[in-house]
Amino acid sequence: MVNARIHAQFTFLTEALRLSEVLRQTLLPTSRRRENDAEHSWHLCLMVIVLAEHSNVPVDALRVLKMLIIHDLVEIDAGDTYAYDTARMANQHEREALAADRIFGLLPADQCASLRACWDEFEARETPEAKFAAALDRLQPVLLNILTDGVKWREHGVTLPKVLARNGHAAEGATEVWDYVRGLLDEAVAKGSLPAA
Amino acid sequence: MVNARIHAQFTFLTEALRLSEVLRQTLLPTSRRRENDAEHSWHLCLMVIVLAEHSNVPVDALRVLKMLIIHDLVEIDAGDTYAYDTARMANQHEREALAADRIFGLLPADQCASLRACWDEFEARETPEAKFAAALDRLQPVLLNILTDGVKWREHGVTLPKVLARNGHAAEGATEVWDYVRGLLDEAVAKGSLPAA
Repeated sequence: MVNARIHAQFTFLTEALRLSEVLRQTLLPTSRRRENDAEHSWHLCLMVIVLAEHSNVPVDALRVLKMLIIHDLVEIDAGDTYAYDTARMANQHEREALAADRIFGLLPADQCASLRACWDEFEARETPEAKFAAALDRLQPVLLNILTDGVKWREHGVTLPKVLARNGHAAEGATEVWDYVRGLLDEAVAKGSLPAA
Repeated sequence: MVNARIHAQFTFLTEALRLSEVLRQTLLPTSRRRENDAEHSWHLCLMVIVLAEHSNVPVDALRVLKMLIIHDLVEIDAGDTYAYDTARMANQHEREALAADRIFGLLPADQCASLRACWDEFEARETPEAKFAAALDRLQPVLLNILTDGVKWREHGVTLPKVLARNGHAAEGATEVWDYVRGLLDEAVAKGSLPAA
């Protein structure tokens, strides 16, 4: 007889594999192909391990990791919303909440509730863990744009003030890391990768 | 003045992005393209969150996650060694240990030592956390082969006895999960995806 609980868990894990098919607007430095959400999520996990010590307030690394492992699953249904696409950002949360209902709903009820609460916490960005997770989620594509000479920034007409307005609140989660990246942004402007205005 | 510690951490995080360029022998179910190590590592993290309750002995999920987030970084230098390629498996550990020296060596000394110890623990497969992590690392490609009708199994002449010999010790980490996957393997044989012998 099939174990119904494990069967539901594998149904969810199988559906989750589609995260690799959601392409982002950032390019990977070596191949210059578009990064996907699964790769992005893994890189954020690595950032947690290495950079957690710089969180403005001490964080529970396990909770941060859980948030970042699941935070983009909703994009399987809702798609990736580009950070500078204000039109699509308008109904982003609504689209993603419907996706959360369906995707986490594949799990046994207790795990569905637990992962949904974890995603809601990330979205609300109020706890120290959610703020730190959100800071990394903002910084990672900035790093990729820097490493790929700002090709996508210029393609989308993104300027330094736009990057600062969109990502400056990363300082809320990890000021020292943001200060370091701020220096990289100045270098990017000096190199012509990112328009100053 | 640049923060030297954060600079070393970003050098490591930048090098780590190459994990997305290491292709595996498994195919993703939707696009049928080859999975890469970064995607694989993320999917393993999700499996930890969902399946940790089935570990034969209780595990510290944070330690399991750390192991799985970093376990394949050595393949940036050493390449992916196919689970059924016994020739290349002969010197696999030696190649990977050299890679660990270089890649973890990009980090500040304390973090290098910490992540190296984490990788060594995973490789030794002696602690409950390492056994559970190894079990998931074996089961994940089996799941992908099942979901893609065994195309890669048949291409490489892999049979049910080979899958059982290579992966049966996954039961050491999570017997119930292995029992479930064992049922899926019987279905794969019945469907002709996996040769019975």
